[in-house]
Amino acid sequence: MDSNNNNKFMEFPFVSSPHKSLMVDLVSTLENRFHSHLLPSTLPNDVRHYQSQTGSAQASLHIRAAHPHSPIDFVLGSWVHSELPTGGSFDITSLSAYLNTSTDAPNFVFEIIRSSPTNLILILDLPPRKDPVLWPNYLQTFYDDTHLDAHRQALHTLPEVQPYFSSSLFIRAVSSPTGILVRIQTENGGQERMEEILAKHLDPVSKQVLEIWLDKCASANREVGDEEREYLKKRDGVIRNKTIEVDLGSSFPRLFGPEVANRVLDVIKDYFTVS
Amino acid sequence: MDSNNNNKFMEFPFVSSPHKSLMVDLVSTLENRFHSHLLPSTLPNDVRHYQSQTGSAQASLHIRAAHPHSPIDFVLGSWVHSELPTGGSFDITSLSAYLNTSTDAPNFVFEIIRSSPTNLILILDLPPRKDPVLWPNYLQTFYDDTHLDAHRQALHTLPEVQPYFSSSLFIRAVSSPTGILVRIQTENGGQERMEEILAKHLDPVSKQVLEIWLDKCASANREVGDEEREYLKKRDGVIRNKTIEVDLGSSFPRLFGPEVANRVLDVIKDYFTVS
Repeated sequence: MDSNNNNKFMEFPFVSSPHKSLMVDLVSTLENRFHSHLLPSTLPNDVRHYQSQTGSAQASLHIRAAHPHSPIDFVLGSWVHSELPTGGSFDITSLSAYLNTSTDAPNFVFEIIRSSPTNLILILDLPPRKDPVLWPNYLQTFYDDTHLDAHRQALHTLPEVQPYFSSSLFIRAVSSPTGILVRIQTENGGQERMEEILAKHLDPVSKQVLEIWLDKCASANREVGDEEREYLKKRDGVIRNKTIEVDLGSSFPRLFGPEVANRVLDVIKDYFTVS
Repeated sequence: MDSNNNNKFMEFPFVSSPHKSLMVDLVSTLENRFHSHLLPSTLPNDVRHYQSQTGSAQASLHIRAAHPHSPIDFVLGSWVHSELPTGGSFDITSLSAYLNTSTDAPNFVFEIIRSSPTNLILILDLPPRKDPVLWPNYLQTFYDDTHLDAHRQALHTLPEVQPYFSSSLFIRAVSSPTGILVRIQTENGGQERMEEILAKHLDPVSKQVLEIWLDKCASANREVGDEEREYLKKRDGVIRNKTIEVDLGSSFPRLFGPEVANRVLDVIKDYFTVS
């Protein structure tokens, strides 16, 4: 771990114990596995931790680039906590890993959005980096042969779990056919049941999907020719630009005000530039 | 209509009255709108209607190609009826329209699979013909601006409606982000409730989606350059080959025996060849 300045991020101070435990385990597993690849974070302090003028929203950002010979481009973790005018609060915690154009293997995306103690959205996916329709072998290798769908199916056996459809069609389009995009509601069982689902179901499923990504994607030996590299560069670029435009670019200014949002987004955009 | 030999197809003799009415309306609407484009069917009689050796499964196929200056490649309709060893039966009725490479607009796909009086799967989609991730404008034009998702959302307000996930990841991958892929179960309301859902919900939604396809896709004026035409040719080709391999190629021999299945599949493959 990049221990000096990383404490604040790894504290996850606003989420429940099983939620924090899952986040810490995922970040540690990913960073330990690629320990020798990842460079220390160079984020300025006011981007590692930032808040809105009133203090009603605060967030922590963690980005580590990899050395030039790694297949990893960078790893990005974050948490956002915001108090709601209604008295409640909402929390987002996320971890994603982007590969560079030396490989065409899928990326890793994990995000939990908690808008109340009994309402949770989970996005857990290995988004394809090539059009899976045009390359059915890609689908076979990374999604069929890895049995990824079994984990999605396992979660869907819980009565509290429903598919989640993002309001952004682009976000839907980038997800894989085995993507876990679910909304979990535990009105009947309350917060206690939600914590149980987090600990007993989301925790193991998330770790298993991360293991698949670590073993079968990030560590895959892929040959990428010049033409394919140009294709990946273009497609990765569209995804990263749209991610900022659709997701971060619209929510950050609302939460943190334009000044703070721009400061943070400018730094993120630097990492999101595909080279 | 291609009236002489088309009667058997348009009879839909094994499905309920609202189901038949919906199919007849969809086929008529599509064929009337493109009346001047579509050529008479040239299918041999033993492909227009065919059955298994024992007669436990029978089917009707309807294909009309279009003249060379039409954006339409061909229109394909079919029904399949099969008696189940358990005493029940299952029915598939479908209508699809494939555009040619003079346009990049989405195709039209409609299919109802009825495995019991209280169990129905609906696939209603305008599958994209370009990777919507690489071309976000394509997504905007054909899916966002046409408000297609409103129809999917409308169906999902019914408590009997659940998302349907095909066991084939390829079938999932070809569908659009607004695709209606749902399973409807009416155990509590029985067959009566299913017929009500067909008449009051599936009927109007299906017709509205077809209208969007007719107005905004099949009639769209699209400029397609040489390079793009090659791309469409390749991508359309993969989709059509995989559709035969994953869908028809596996179910037809099981239902009709290898001899009948091959006879019908050979004819379908002729139309599915992208030129």
